[in-house]
Amino acid sequence: MREDLTVRGTRDYYPEVYSRLGHIMDAWRRTALAYGFEEFDGPVIETLDLYRIKSGDEITGQLYHFTDKGGRELALRPELTPTVARMVAKILREAPKPIKWFSIPRCFRYEKPQKGRLREFFQFNVDIIGEEEGLSDVETMGVAIDSLLRLGLKEDDFVVKINNRDFVSVFFRDAGIGEKDERELYKIIDNAPKVPPEVTDERIGDLGIDGKQKQALDEYLGIKNIEDLERMKYSNPGKESLLAVFSHIQAAGFGPYCALDVTVVRGLDYYTGTVYEIFDKGERMRAICGGGRYNHLLREFGGLEVPACGFGMGDVVLGDILEKRGLLPEYEKKVDYFLVRISEDQLPVLLETARTLRKKGHTVEYAYRPTSVKKQMAKASKAGAASALIFGREEMEEKSVRVKDLRSGEEKTLPLADIFAE
Amino acid sequence: MREDLTVRGTRDYYPEVYSRLGHIMDAWRRTALAYGFEEFDGPVIETLDLYRIKSGDEITGQLYHFTDKGGRELALRPELTPTVARMVAKILREAPKPIKWFSIPRCFRYEKPQKGRLREFFQFNVDIIGEEEGLSDVETMGVAIDSLLRLGLKEDDFVVKINNRDFVSVFFRDAGIGEKDERELYKIIDNAPKVPPEVTDERIGDLGIDGKQKQALDEYLGIKNIEDLERMKYSNPGKESLLAVFSHIQAAGFGPYCALDVTVVRGLDYYTGTVYEIFDKGERMRAICGGGRYNHLLREFGGLEVPACGFGMGDVVLGDILEKRGLLPEYEKKVDYFLVRISEDQLPVLLETARTLRKKGHTVEYAYRPTSVKKQMAKASKAGAASALIFGREEMEEKSVRVKDLRSGEEKTLPLADIFAE
Repeated sequence: MREDLTVRGTRDYYPEVYSRLGHIMDAWRRTALAYGFEEFDGPVIETLDLYRIKSGDEITGQLYHFTDKGGRELALRPELTPTVARMVAKILREAPKPIKWFSIPRCFRYEKPQKGRLREFFQFNVDIIGEEEGLSDVETMGVAIDSLLRLGLKEDDFVVKINNRDFVSVFFRDAGIGEKDERELYKIIDNAPKVPPEVTDERIGDLGIDGKQKQALDEYLGIKNIEDLERMKYSNPGKESLLAVFSHIQAAGFGPYCALDVTVVRGLDYYTGTVYEIFDKGERMRAICGGGRYNHLLREFGGLEVPACGFGMGDVVLGDILEKRGLLPEYEKKVDYFLVRISEDQLPVLLETARTLRKKGHTVEYAYRPTSVKKQMAKASKAGAASALIFGREEMEEKSVRVKDLRSGEEKTLPLADIFAE
Repeated sequence: MREDLTVRGTRDYYPEVYSRLGHIMDAWRRTALAYGFEEFDGPVIETLDLYRIKSGDEITGQLYHFTDKGGRELALRPELTPTVARMVAKILREAPKPIKWFSIPRCFRYEKPQKGRLREFFQFNVDIIGEEEGLSDVETMGVAIDSLLRLGLKEDDFVVKINNRDFVSVFFRDAGIGEKDERELYKIIDNAPKVPPEVTDERIGDLGIDGKQKQALDEYLGIKNIEDLERMKYSNPGKESLLAVFSHIQAAGFGPYCALDVTVVRGLDYYTGTVYEIFDKGERMRAICGGGRYNHLLREFGGLEVPACGFGMGDVVLGDILEKRGLLPEYEKKVDYFLVRISEDQLPVLLETARTLRKKGHTVEYAYRPTSVKKQMAKASKAGAASALIFGREEMEEKSVRVKDLRSGEEKTLPLADIFAE
């Protein structure tokens, strides 16, 4: 036997694996369609330049990239947002707004494969382009939440943690910190829930900020829920937007799934207002989904300045969570009819019947080689067929067929015409 | 505006493009499922070694390949068969036979983009593994034929040209030619229908064969249909197999779509018995699909020797043909309900209604910003919604809603409960 030639970090989607992936994709697709989103896709291969325009270092360092035989620098897409920006830029002037698009692209990242992270994965992408902050942000969260509920997850299983980048940045600017250390500050805030408070304190100390600024930072990290935010005397447009988003969340019935979390800032450069992440509430609190508003991104791609928001949700972590909770259906091949022939004389009528039933959408199988009725019946059972249709000499003369229900064992003779009418 | 960053030979699948692709994929998928095939997929990235094992030069010269950061030589799959062989080799011993699999992989070839050929494309792959020549070959042809018929093509639009590699090779071996010149001979035969007879004659002359061998070759090229083959006194197992396949084709009702064509030999090294190609009957006679039997391929991938057959059908030529014949449906975004509010007071009940209807699978939209009823109604029309549900103060008090059918213009007031029960 040769060595295993499968590329590390990729998967072989055998039918039972593919069916679980299909179950997840189906929930994503149905939810997005019910919300009025249109499905699209882009190529897997993009120019490397596309990712040079705006992606954070974290992404570009993890690209699969190469030079083709014509000397072009190309990359396998690590995410869909740059493709969305490129495609929307071409049609933005003419297209009716808002543009509501979704996709389930296959993406690639060259990173160390581990539980929840693979080099080839699928990602549910949902975007609204051409709409200001407010209900549209809640609409994208709604697609994420309702798709998780459709997959069987419950209020106890996940939480949407929401924040607003404008609120954070203006708050710190007003407090006199963050202009030059914004990136470093975001890293500290982002890490705060994952490390002991003294580590966060030490990191804040390293920022070299004065006592008053330190106090503002402590006040910020002290905001634990939406009520804390409401009570806060300080205000800026990002805060007001956050409060409006939460009121829409309540109105739409998403309250039980959502929480304000001021440590959510999202690593990527391109987010501007609302940001959110969905976490598994299990012991490991893994991120299932990340999204937010990216109002300046399209301009960078040669398009117009246009408000936009959206999210990405991968299949790998979500698949693990669903599997752990027993929410992925067992794979079962569905066969409606297995056709059995007493002798090869019946083959023509069997083949004709197979084709007629298949055209009507039934799944039909039969033995490809002449074999005994007993063996054909065994094959029918093994295939998990619901019924066997048995073609014998007598039946053929009467244009009828013997029907055996393979679950109940019940048998009857029916005219072929009745079977076709089913 | 920046230069267009789309990679040459790839497509941007805008919703209207994606929907046409989806229409083709849906026909492929439904047909394969009705025939009892199971859907699977493999990774887009494979090791370059996988293609070195067995693919003809034609394929390996057209690969997108590169070395990853870990020094591994990788390639983007140009076709699915090597992946099928690799995956089946892992499970062949345990799996019940025959294995009946289909897939619609995204594939990549680095070749000059032109009408009908792109660098990124989709290909319908159908394979039966673990079954000897005969009905199973006809079964795969049936999937190809019935999927084309489902897409609206007719008997006048396409033809399945069938031959048998064993018949050809043994015929020429028995005639004393072909042992060392087999490859060259296949090229001449394959090209015979595309060039004037004198060119074929000249090429045959260059082979350096004697008069008797030349006569055999002329006799071979003189076989124009299955009746000619039946009448031929010479026989070999490949010929008998071809006759059996044609008798199954007749029995299954595929006769009108199929023809014997001895010039079909298929370029790739791995075909062994039955081979076929489906051609558009239009002026350009483009190949839509190619398939056949490949009984030795799995052994090469470290598996067992196992009989197998299958085909591949790309989306690009087929899409062009369907478009030319007006068989691709017009894209139309489907919206069931557009929800309209008299004032923002009705927003909570509107959002709740939207969510309830969406959960039931209806497509629902509404305006994301406060705007006049007139403008909301205009949006509803523009979205192509079937009905508008209008929420006013009075209606809210009575837990009812005004329903306007946007096609007939008819209006009525209904309890919300009735809408939810729909």
